[in-house]
Amino acid sequence: MHQVDAHAATSGDASAHASPPPRIGLWLVGARGSVATTAVLGLAAIAQGHATATGCVTAGEQFAGAPLPDFGSFVVGGHDVIDASMELRAQTLVDGRMIPHHLLESTRSALAAADAEVRPGYTSMHVAGAAAESQQAAAERLAGDILDFQRRHDLQRVVMVDLASTEAVPDTAPEFFDADLLRASLKDPDRAVLPPSSVMAYAAILAGVSYACFTPSAGMNLPVLMDLATERGIPVAGQDGKTGQTWLRTVLGPAFAARGLSVLSWAGTNLLGGGDGATLADPVAVRSKLSSKTRGLKAITGSDVTPLHIDNVPDLGDIKVAWDHVHAEGFLGSRLTLQTTWSAYDSMLAAPMVLDLARLLSLAAEAGSRGPVAELGFFFKDPWGSDRHDFAAQADELVRWVDEAAQRVGAALSHS
Amino acid sequence: MHQVDAHAATSGDASAHASPPPRIGLWLVGARGSVATTAVLGLAAIAQGHATATGCVTAGEQFAGAPLPDFGSFVVGGHDVIDASMELRAQTLVDGRMIPHHLLESTRSALAAADAEVRPGYTSMHVAGAAAESQQAAAERLAGDILDFQRRHDLQRVVMVDLASTEAVPDTAPEFFDADLLRASLKDPDRAVLPPSSVMAYAAILAGVSYACFTPSAGMNLPVLMDLATERGIPVAGQDGKTGQTWLRTVLGPAFAARGLSVLSWAGTNLLGGGDGATLADPVAVRSKLSSKTRGLKAITGSDVTPLHIDNVPDLGDIKVAWDHVHAEGFLGSRLTLQTTWSAYDSMLAAPMVLDLARLLSLAAEAGSRGPVAELGFFFKDPWGSDRHDFAAQADELVRWVDEAAQRVGAALSHS
Amino acid sequence: MHQVDAHAATSGDASAHASPPPRIGLWLVGARGSVATTAVLGLAAIAQGHATATGCVTAGEQFAGAPLPDFGSFVVGGHDVIDASMELRAQTLVDGRMIPHHLLESTRSALAAADAEVRPGYTSMHVAGAAAESQQAAAERLAGDILDFQRRHDLQRVVMVDLASTEAVPDTAPEFFDADLLRASLKDPDRAVLPPSSVMAYAAILAGVSYACFTPSAGMNLPVLMDLATERGIPVAGQDGKTGQTWLRTVLGPAFAARGLSVLSWAGTNLLGGGDGATLADPVAVRSKLSSKTRGLKAITGSDVTPLHIDNVPDLGDIKVAWDHVHAEGFLGSRLTLQTTWSAYDSMLAAPMVLDLARLLSLAAEAGSRGPVAELGFFFKDPWGSDRHDFAAQADELVRWVDEAAQRVGAALSHS
Amino acid sequence: MHQVDAHAATSGDASAHASPPPRIGLWLVGARGSVATTAVLGLAAIAQGHATATGCVTAGEQFAGAPLPDFGSFVVGGHDVIDASMELRAQTLVDGRMIPHHLLESTRSALAAADAEVRPGYTSMHVAGAAAESQQAAAERLAGDILDFQRRHDLQRVVMVDLASTEAVPDTAPEFFDADLLRASLKDPDRAVLPPSSVMAYAAILAGVSYACFTPSAGMNLPVLMDLATERGIPVAGQDGKTGQTWLRTVLGPAFAARGLSVLSWAGTNLLGGGDGATLADPVAVRSKLSSKTRGLKAITGSDVTPLHIDNVPDLGDIKVAWDHVHAEGFLGSRLTLQTTWSAYDSMLAAPMVLDLARLLSLAAEAGSRGPVAELGFFFKDPWGSDRHDFAAQADELVRWVDEAAQRVGAALSHS
Repeated sequence: MHQVDAHAATSGDASAHASPPPRIGLWLVGARGSVATTAVLGLAAIAQGHATATGCVTAGEQFAGAPLPDFGSFVVGGHDVIDASMELRAQTLVDGRMIPHHLLESTRSALAAADAEVRPGYTSMHVAGAAAESQQAAAERLAGDILDFQRRHDLQRVVMVDLASTEAVPDTAPEFFDADLLRASLKDPDRAVLPPSSVMAYAAILAGVSYACFTPSAGMNLPVLMDLATERGIPVAGQDGKTGQTWLRTVLGPAFAARGLSVLSWAGTNLLGGGDGATLADPVAVRSKLSSKTRGLKAITGSDVTPLHIDNVPDLGDIKVAWDHVHAEGFLGSRLTLQTTWSAYDSMLAAPMVLDLARLLSLAAEAGSRGPVAELGFFFKDPWGSDRHDFAAQADELVRWVDEAAQRVGAALSHS
Repeated sequence: MHQVDAHAATSGDASAHASPPPRIGLWLVGARGSVATTAVLGLAAIAQGHATATGCVTAGEQFAGAPLPDFGSFVVGGHDVIDASMELRAQTLVDGRMIPHHLLESTRSALAAADAEVRPGYTSMHVAGAAAESQQAAAERLAGDILDFQRRHDLQRVVMVDLASTEAVPDTAPEFFDADLLRASLKDPDRAVLPPSSVMAYAAILAGVSYACFTPSAGMNLPVLMDLATERGIPVAGQDGKTGQTWLRTVLGPAFAARGLSVLSWAGTNLLGGGDGATLADPVAVRSKLSSKTRGLKAITGSDVTPLHIDNVPDLGDIKVAWDHVHAEGFLGSRLTLQTTWSAYDSMLAAPMVLDLARLLSLAAEAGSRGPVAELGFFFKDPWGSDRHDFAAQADELVRWVDEAAQRVGAALSHS
Repeated sequence: MHQVDAHAATSGDASAHASPPPRIGLWLVGARGSVATTAVLGLAAIAQGHATATGCVTAGEQFAGAPLPDFGSFVVGGHDVIDASMELRAQTLVDGRMIPHHLLESTRSALAAADAEVRPGYTSMHVAGAAAESQQAAAERLAGDILDFQRRHDLQRVVMVDLASTEAVPDTAPEFFDADLLRASLKDPDRAVLPPSSVMAYAAILAGVSYACFTPSAGMNLPVLMDLATERGIPVAGQDGKTGQTWLRTVLGPAFAARGLSVLSWAGTNLLGGGDGATLADPVAVRSKLSSKTRGLKAITGSDVTPLHIDNVPDLGDIKVAWDHVHAEGFLGSRLTLQTTWSAYDSMLAAPMVLDLARLLSLAAEAGSRGPVAELGFFFKDPWGSDRHDFAAQADELVRWVDEAAQRVGAALSHS
Repeated sequence: MHQVDAHAATSGDASAHASPPPRIGLWLVGARGSVATTAVLGLAAIAQGHATATGCVTAGEQFAGAPLPDFGSFVVGGHDVIDASMELRAQTLVDGRMIPHHLLESTRSALAAADAEVRPGYTSMHVAGAAAESQQAAAERLAGDILDFQRRHDLQRVVMVDLASTEAVPDTAPEFFDADLLRASLKDPDRAVLPPSSVMAYAAILAGVSYACFTPSAGMNLPVLMDLATERGIPVAGQDGKTGQTWLRTVLGPAFAARGLSVLSWAGTNLLGGGDGATLADPVAVRSKLSSKTRGLKAITGSDVTPLHIDNVPDLGDIKVAWDHVHAEGFLGSRLTLQTTWSAYDSMLAAPMVLDLARLLSLAAEAGSRGPVAELGFFFKDPWGSDRHDFAAQADELVRWVDEAAQRVGAALSHS
């Protein structure tokens, strides 16, 4: 059973030290969206002791004693292209009965502080702009925002998490495979070879900050950027948060396989409202999402019959409802079915995983990880550096990795 | 993905040897019931190449090369207290559309051969009988049936699997804890201290055959019998086959825990017809069943709110339908629900597990296992010798155990 | 499509008259429970224009123009045996996220006013009391409370709705069939022949007020009381509100029949928390509930296989979740299944039906109905005076009855 | 409760007459498909007394005594464009475990007899043919087939039921509204203004036979054809059989409305294999299907949020699984959900309705109905001549219509 480690959640090991624990930056791309706002509000509530860290994997007892930064040690900033503040977003979530009123009250100043650190982001609209800055200039501007934030708050390190809306899949280009071609292209103000999420990822490289891609957008997932991140010694993790239905599928699929039951088809439907529902009703944007949602399932079950739909049902608000129908063959050609219906506030599933990633990537950076951290595949539909989708195996792997990273960090400390 | 190892399923490694592979006995208690009949029919169909071993865990690629007996190497016999033959039972299952007609046609002679080896069993009716034999005499008679079967068929070893109907939970007695008391009591024709399933288990000890308890009945699960089995060097495994709903729960429960989600309640309903439905409609008999169905869940989730019902719905025939409703708490007190509906022919889930247990206990005996084989907990709601219920962990443990047992067997061979 | 008749809901036809519309009393037994509190809060919110009458059948366009009292014309009082106020109950419902905070704010004074009219009720604890009043004295006290309320508020008439907790089924007695025997027995302070709900019903007869029984308790449903109500010219309606799962069953069951599909079994499970969950976890109290829940279904489908469970799942709070599994036979012996999962706040389903009954029984009284009003069977699991359970037929019948009652009222008016 | 009227099913009222009852033709378009084959096999099994008419509405007790032709009085023929016989199709359905083997055995000769009456049909492939006949010539050929069938079997009348695969929605044309334009166009061998299903409908007009459209294809549903049918005194009924999910929706939707509950969204998914699954995986063909599936729902609930998908899941064979998620608003803005999962052999739902239509249209013809028979809307997703979708209301209307038609027939008889 999962036990929240209240000690780690509120004070951390560092409380025994005379000097204050180092502070860590959490830089959110899409900072004023539902997931980011929920994460920031929750971070403050946990740090204040007004909420437990339920839903945060790293608060579980299997990570007790791991050298992860306290929830209270994070300072938040970010990029966004919308003007409505985090407080406003939080109010909407309270009105939709997702967040209790009293938690907004107690975290209002923390939200305001974070919101004051939000800088104008970069979207495809910039690409089309008349007097457009070159993508190089844009990335430098974005990286400058982060470095300024780090300097002003005296942060030991910063972790960027991309939570922005899903982009369309970009057409491939030679620049995606060649750093020199990329550099040349980025400087040309008339070209926009990178999708916006990849400009943000490039900014992370320029600023030297750890990076997680919680969306299905390209982000760091271009060969040229992955190589650069590895070269610069930046740990990166992705991609596309495995929050609900896909998580469930990677729990159940391996269990069918372990029982020797042969999955014939795995059909599913997602109903969702909120901004996500509207975005994913766009058939172009949804393509990357649907593809990453079924990839793991096909790998696990071997079945190609995995029709999946996402429907925009605005009246559901922030609740996501997912129905799956699994048809399998058992002994002597017999047939069996499993149906699952999952109903949850999607932002409430995603937000604690964002906090987990912030803590874990901070450790990864401290432990010297470079490039894709395969062992963080636990969090993602499309794990970078790994073809493992089996959730139970990923959970074991995560625990082992934290142990091993902790040893690396401990070893480094003992040298000094 | 699960791959049926067709080679192992039909011919086995032994096909390369000059001498015929040794033959193994499979002794089924409740041999004329649905599960036993389905197992025997399936065993024949697989051995003949008329069916694949879908649903048999040991046919998976992770066990390729393991020194398990071929499906074709088994000879079947058993005990039962009903007179209607396996063929008659199989015909009923064909009429209920569970088993295809052509499979019964091709296995009719195998069923007849197995049925010819069924001897009168022992039930609570014997206990109440006027001219009752003592339980010692009964156990010796039952053991004699098995040893005669082994001798006549020149079997290297025999595995007993108890598939009889669920008994009421017996009142405890001092004899359950003391071998001397037990022996004295067994010889008294006026006493019947052991429940029928435990008389069968005691017969397994007398005959020196491996033993699996696929039912919730007491069977070998009395301290005195467990000790005797260990002393005599008999591997035993139990208890209560984890076929459907409970299996699903031990897949899903740990995943909630690994995500830091706190299960508040896990409510369930089972609908079943067939003989099982009628038996379990008896509130006394069902008590042991319900208790073992929820035990693992409580251990995994920590929640005590796990109401569960079993309803007899005769029109469903051999299909079992199970509905579960999980209510959990996530981030910031948010609530989420998961519903599952499972629909399957229960005998089709159980039968391949019976074949797996026959193969694995044969290996256990060869590898010198004594007493409860904790690593076979994979197959059971109430694993003997283990408090592990997490299915993914059990699957890993099973693979490791087979590897290790294989080495023990190989080492032994290399010494000779 | 259902259209809320905003005119009727907020002002009513009567607004055109010079004199103020007559005021009607709504007397709630169990006034401080969830359903009653929700009804009172909702009544105030609708009258104020802060909420629409969604969920009120009588606000639909098929009843536009019917001479039903406005929502704003009701004055509320009641009996209860608990001391915690309606406001406190409402606060609990707000905390449980069932009622929005702003609605409590705007109706707080209306709740306080209603709560000031709550008088001590009568329960089985009175029965066992040492210095117990006779049941006649108790009924006269209760009737006095109502008449005093009617007089002080100058109410044209009063409607009592029994919303108290479910009682155990009473043992039958000769007094249930004979008015003289009953009267004699009621006066004996050492006897308590009537269950508490029937003492309340008798008080309604004494006070001459219309009566609806929303619970499965006996209430008015004893032959002797039914006769007295008819004699005294009191319209009565019952019994046991058909709010969720049973409603759904009486919608679906007739549709199977109309298609010539033969229902083989209809199994169900209810999960509920709240006070109701705890009450119904008591196997004695639940018996009357379960019986009335399956009666209609058996009448409609002809199937006797209708296992049904109610589980107390406290973490669900006021939400009720109901799962049904229907197994039917179609053409040529083929089988089909329908599963339904219903999830709703039970008090939110019941409360608008309470307001509907208040409006409709007021009309019934005005139109001179005496005794059981069979056409109000629409609202009940166990309709008094009718063996019709088919919901669509009940809906048609209700519309016809309102038309006819309206004519009776109109005719009466035209004579004056 | 539905009671199969065994008398009507096997012998009918006509058994009392001295002369044999008149024989009626049932002409099936798409005669070798699953639905048609199931209907023909079932018709024979019922006539022989090997099966009851479960699933046939007209066999219910509410139609006892109605002057409907006996099941045994039908002679079957039809058109199709595939060569594989009905027997072959039936064998496939037996292999898929939909039809029991013994029923095929007992009806084999009836299937062969019907199959011998199948003539080459007309599809869009004829349209594209090089040496194409004009559509007028085609329709005359098709009508000739029917008249020849009627003459050879001495049939009192013939009913055509279109069961062919769903076509794409045709582009509109002036000929659809003007009989003269149509006639001119039909004679032009270089033009193919009518979709194939409408050529068949036109052939029904030429042959003077009653007509039902069980598919979403255009068929008779062009203004010009409807007018011609009315003119010629042909009763017609359509369109698109309301077999499963849509039926359920028109049962549940009105019940929500009657309770004053406001449906916010009604989302659904269909999984189906078989030929239908493959046809409907074609996004063009599916458009007409999806449109008719949601039309009734929108009319009933007023909600426009009704996303619906049809997925081809070949491993399901002839089983159709449909999941619906209804989100509604109740009292004081509270939300409730209903989920339904329906699982059935679609052909087993459709076939008895085909037999019902044959019986009812025979009565309609005898009773002198001309053009669309609105009261047969009970059977269809898109009822011709009616905007009523509420299933309970349709069921009442059907009973009333049969009574009234029976009187008309009786009156006619009494004149002679």
